[in-house]
Amino acid sequence: MAPQPVRRATVDDADVVARLLHDFNTEFDTDTPGPFVLAERLRRLLADGQTLALLGGEPASGVALLTLRPNVWYPGPVALLDEMYVVPDARGGGIGGAIVDRLIADCRRDGVSAIEINVDQADVDAQRFYERHGFQGVDPDTGERAYYFSQEL
Amino acid sequence: MAPQPVRRATVDDADVVARLLHDFNTEFDTDTPGPFVLAERLRRLLADGQTLALLGGEPASGVALLTLRPNVWYPGPVALLDEMYVVPDARGGGIGGAIVDRLIADCRRDGVSAIEINVDQADVDAQRFYERHGFQGVDPDTGERAYYFSQEL
Repeated sequence: MAPQPVRRATVDDADVVARLLHDFNTEFDTDTPGPFVLAERLRRLLADGQTLALLGGEPASGVALLTLRPNVWYPGPVALLDEMYVVPDARGGGIGGAIVDRLIADCRRDGVSAIEINVDQADVDAQRFYERHGFQGVDPDTGERAYYFSQEL
Repeated sequence: MAPQPVRRATVDDADVVARLLHDFNTEFDTDTPGPFVLAERLRRLLADGQTLALLGGEPASGVALLTLRPNVWYPGPVALLDEMYVVPDARGGGIGGAIVDRLIADCRRDGVSAIEINVDQADVDAQRFYERHGFQGVDPDTGERAYYFSQEL
């Protein structure tokens, strides 16, 4: 299997990233403001440096969206992998793995201190995928998970 | 019970916030770089506007540390409640609730779209506390939790 190309999205890729994120939420029956609004937001977000996107495959058929924030416990920023999606036809072809490998390498190079992601309880395949790529879902000291809580305002 | 005073920390409060966060990690046997390093980081972080801290009680005996980040699904930023701590002697006196109420009110006023927090699986009291304050740990559509995964680099 040929390695899958992965590249950092630029502001010019806002439409491509928006389309993939829209398809993601549509596939999983989650609300989306639509590709037009997403692309508008992404043009702003991808320009400011706090939001990063990686595109995998050619043409792009996988995307990761990452935000950076400062954290008092670490010298460098912490990255949260907000979104990760590969279109159905491209699954099993190594695009997700290539994106995550690149993401970890980029974060390491850029001095990011930690990477975080929240994964749905039932999505055992995704949990195994992230564990294979070095993520821990269980605190090594306590053997415990942490649960994600949220409220919309 | 008199309402507990809550105020937004300024750069001048970096030492107070650092001491509380250091005590937090010390109490729960978690690594801390020490109050001096924390205070140095906090002077920088509290100045840049992306990290906010609230102090509760007088003298301050509770703290919340919050980071803001952009999010493609919402018009406004998303807030992550990174840390929340009340010193042992002050627990049960309403400081935690007063801090969270103020935090939600401030976020609403400032156009924050959602607030998130990760809570340890065994910390059932904290889970109930956040549920009482409007947070959901279970997806209302699927009935599922989401698990927090991370890796340090």
